[in-house]
Amino acid sequence: MHASQYHINTLKEAPTEAEVASHQLMTRAGMIRRAAGGIYTYMPMGLKVLRKIEAIIRDEMNKAGAIELLMPVVQPAELWLESGRWEQYGDELLRIKDRHQRDFVLQPTSEEVITDIARNEIHSWRQLPINFYHIQTKFRDERRPRFGLMRGREFTMKDAYSFDRDAESAQASYDNMYQAYMSIFKRLGLEFRAVAADTGSIGGSRSHEFQVIADTGEDLIVYNPDSEYAANIELADAPCLYDERAPATSDLTKVATPQASKCELVAQLLDRPLTDTVKSVVLATDTEEDGQTHTQIWLLLVRGDHEVNDIKVSKLDGFEQGHRLATEAEIIETFGCQPGFLGPINTAKPVQVIADLSVAYMSDFICGANEAGFHYSGVNWGRDLPEPIQADLRNVVDGDPAPNGGQLRIQRGIEVGHVFFLGDTYSKKLQATFLDANGKPALMQMGCYGIGVSRISAAAIEQNHDDKGIIWPRAIAPFEVVICPIGYQKSDAVRQQADQLYAQLQAQGVDVILDDRDIRPGNMFADWELIGVPVRITIGDRGLKDGIIEIQTRRAHDSSKVAVDQGATFTLDLLQTL
Amino acid sequence: MHASQYHINTLKEAPTEAEVASHQLMTRAGMIRRAAGGIYTYMPMGLKVLRKIEAIIRDEMNKAGAIELLMPVVQPAELWLESGRWEQYGDELLRIKDRHQRDFVLQPTSEEVITDIARNEIHSWRQLPINFYHIQTKFRDERRPRFGLMRGREFTMKDAYSFDRDAESAQASYDNMYQAYMSIFKRLGLEFRAVAADTGSIGGSRSHEFQVIADTGEDLIVYNPDSEYAANIELADAPCLYDERAPATSDLTKVATPQASKCELVAQLLDRPLTDTVKSVVLATDTEEDGQTHTQIWLLLVRGDHEVNDIKVSKLDGFEQGHRLATEAEIIETFGCQPGFLGPINTAKPVQVIADLSVAYMSDFICGANEAGFHYSGVNWGRDLPEPIQADLRNVVDGDPAPNGGQLRIQRGIEVGHVFFLGDTYSKKLQATFLDANGKPALMQMGCYGIGVSRISAAAIEQNHDDKGIIWPRAIAPFEVVICPIGYQKSDAVRQQADQLYAQLQAQGVDVILDDRDIRPGNMFADWELIGVPVRITIGDRGLKDGIIEIQTRRAHDSSKVAVDQGATFTLDLLQTL
Repeated sequence: MHASQYHINTLKEAPTEAEVASHQLMTRAGMIRRAAGGIYTYMPMGLKVLRKIEAIIRDEMNKAGAIELLMPVVQPAELWLESGRWEQYGDELLRIKDRHQRDFVLQPTSEEVITDIARNEIHSWRQLPINFYHIQTKFRDERRPRFGLMRGREFTMKDAYSFDRDAESAQASYDNMYQAYMSIFKRLGLEFRAVAADTGSIGGSRSHEFQVIADTGEDLIVYNPDSEYAANIELADAPCLYDERAPATSDLTKVATPQASKCELVAQLLDRPLTDTVKSVVLATDTEEDGQTHTQIWLLLVRGDHEVNDIKVSKLDGFEQGHRLATEAEIIETFGCQPGFLGPINTAKPVQVIADLSVAYMSDFICGANEAGFHYSGVNWGRDLPEPIQADLRNVVDGDPAPNGGQLRIQRGIEVGHVFFLGDTYSKKLQATFLDANGKPALMQMGCYGIGVSRISAAAIEQNHDDKGIIWPRAIAPFEVVICPIGYQKSDAVRQQADQLYAQLQAQGVDVILDDRDIRPGNMFADWELIGVPVRITIGDRGLKDGIIEIQTRRAHDSSKVAVDQGATFTLDLLQTL
Repeated sequence: MHASQYHINTLKEAPTEAEVASHQLMTRAGMIRRAAGGIYTYMPMGLKVLRKIEAIIRDEMNKAGAIELLMPVVQPAELWLESGRWEQYGDELLRIKDRHQRDFVLQPTSEEVITDIARNEIHSWRQLPINFYHIQTKFRDERRPRFGLMRGREFTMKDAYSFDRDAESAQASYDNMYQAYMSIFKRLGLEFRAVAADTGSIGGSRSHEFQVIADTGEDLIVYNPDSEYAANIELADAPCLYDERAPATSDLTKVATPQASKCELVAQLLDRPLTDTVKSVVLATDTEEDGQTHTQIWLLLVRGDHEVNDIKVSKLDGFEQGHRLATEAEIIETFGCQPGFLGPINTAKPVQVIADLSVAYMSDFICGANEAGFHYSGVNWGRDLPEPIQADLRNVVDGDPAPNGGQLRIQRGIEVGHVFFLGDTYSKKLQATFLDANGKPALMQMGCYGIGVSRISAAAIEQNHDDKGIIWPRAIAPFEVVICPIGYQKSDAVRQQADQLYAQLQAQGVDVILDDRDIRPGNMFADWELIGVPVRITIGDRGLKDGIIEIQTRRAHDSSKVAVDQGATFTLDLLQTL
């Protein structure tokens, strides 16, 4: 490829709405152009990146035995009604009508269509296991699309669906996909973690996210640097921080804490560590019974330096139907006190108390006194109040002890892949059955496996960029090598060397571009630093006098002066290291 | 690929709604499955065909210097309002609303988005010419989708758009695409014709269709077997069939022709050739003037054995605003007679007469007498009625003289590609300008170039099938070779030979599948005849006793007994001939 025959159009400024590096840099590098909110055209170099990502995914999926097909973007409402998601799925599901006023959706995912295919195509256990996937345009009508390709509306996703005869076989299919994903992300050249994740509303029983590590990620990942352990903070078990409960040493004392409505202020006021305080969080659950709504108020206690984990709360006994923050009226009625000074002692009405595992082992602690401007100190379980129900209620924090020794660390990640064990959630709804070895109908056991193809391109940039631009991993760079001749139009020597090296690298299968544009070297270099091609080769008359060309890596800016006739070999060796 | 690890699910019966061979056979072969009317899932083998077609198109487009990008499926209404097509495009344009009630379309084509990109990206004549293309999902909300992939709603199309600084350069871009299309369809292995075509409502000045020849095609192609000439019948010039007008020999005579309201019946009744009769077609044009509608009635005359060509009529002087069939009331008012016995003589009111070129040179002809049950015979121009306005009004018929000698033939075709010279139709609407060499703003000259990717797979089958199934051209077959071992599970010798040949062919880059399924040979053979793999290799114990395997072509069913150790070489040579 010669640059003059390609379309390169870099911008000095990013659009004002671009808040994150990937959005700014992909726009400035000319890789994407906005068509509407959350909808982009992939310009030539952006598409090249996308296709390289797709090719790696396809190759590993095929190696893992998955079979590619292509389901439509526009899907009939009937199947979504059958699964119940026509109603359940929120406004992100774009529902449309055709000219005959028939209902359709723009697919955000394809569980319904693939389950329909499976129930029509698969009749016998002999056809199982099977795993179908497609790489297709998806649409999710985000309320506030932003961050460019990180949270777009129209995007490319690879989604795979496995069908098995029983749970054991389905687990093997799941493990197979897990391994395929490990291979995919390794080949993409990204720093990532596979983390245990919550299964959320999909309702399966097992799930892992594949997270690209990046400071700008929206997800918090808990991991143990000394082991394989990694989990989304939503799911990561938070241990009890005390081996045993220390004996009580203080008396229960009511202390004035005017204006100190937060643990930090109380600790400061009383000159005690924050870890001696207990935070009160009041939640309510509503259950319908005989047409009446019964509301239960719950007091959840976590240590002052900890945060309540909403996903864990949602799994508590009694929270199956959902929960919410209690209203101020409910709080005043239950505690006889406004928020800010609440606690488990002397409530106006009986309240269900659940203490985090750590809180349950604290002694001589401080909590609200249910009286505005007052807290109790020297609070002890069993003596001052009954033993609590215990549960893991909190987010892990950096430094928490890890399950198998060592300390847990937290880092940020961008979710780019997700594997789910679905069980029979969809096969039951759509009655996807097969005849088992005994000739009896049985529900297929399913798994689903997604990768955000276009999101990976953005995540790669969030992880790999500097103030000059993008630093693509070699495997997904729009070009692996750029040859920058200084004076291609003017110097025969430069042109001949550039053309020769270009031909040599091409013959070796290197994805190389020769920048034959008649522009100033500074602009040329700036373009390729912005675009982020891993290796740049500069050929100029000055170097050629000494038989030398310059080869530089984008990431480290390592620069080597290399003999002209060694240029191709040196570049090939260098690429192996990137 | 081993068949047991793939998904092969052939059907004995085609769905009842499948009216054409491609729809029937793609369904029976398990290549497509219906998701909704005109919306299909490409099953694994159907997708393989699609991808092979795409790869050939992509390769030739890249060779021709076009640059691939990817425009979105969901496009903002604003651009379609700017071009005027939001209103002009009929119900086939699926207009949708997002969650914020903003208007979008599902793209049926991308002139608007690409012109928007061009006006933002291209500022100088130095950036021109440029040609962008994408291969993307399209949606056209056909009122009555049918014929499977031949007339679907969701389909895959390659559309390219060229931008040039002037008409001369744009013509070169057009010619370049024309040549690329010739290369593409040659490589696809299809019998096709590039035919001059009408530009229709797109409004450019030049256009060619690429038609796959097939008896089931909807289009009629006029061509000269002795020259390059080929045109869609809509556009093909119909010559005058008489060198000169013969002198009048008969008197004008009114003859009773009861019930003979069609030329065929009149000719039969009067025992005269159909070519002595003239057919009357009455049209009306409505023009608005000062808020009043002025209606003009036209009498068009073609020879009794000819058909009026509506596209040609639409280009007549006075027909610029459109035309319609005259109503019965208008006919009776103008001619004083009901339809069936109309003619140019003795009309109740003056009427504009236009005669086809051939009719204008007829003598002693027969036409309606504007009196129910009567015709005139012995009608002669100049003597019995004034000389008419002349125009080419009719469709070419088989055997018409060709422009450069020889005779025109007519065959049916399926339109799979179309190249248009657009000029500034879109660049003017969207103000896509650039600075020319003099620094002055000028409108870009555009061309657009479409290929129906998924339609090609159907057209290939319409052209290439027999009563056993599909006969794929090698280039786009889901597999090039199938190895059918007889007793793969039972005979070590068979399995070893099959595995070895499979490995040899794979090593040579052949796309081969080994059918390791434990099914009866008859069923296995029937499956592959239906699926249409070009070469089948049968390996059985009986042949192996004599060191022989059988290699058969799908199309001709040529069967060769080949020595086992010659199997790979023979197959490779055979593939070269397919």
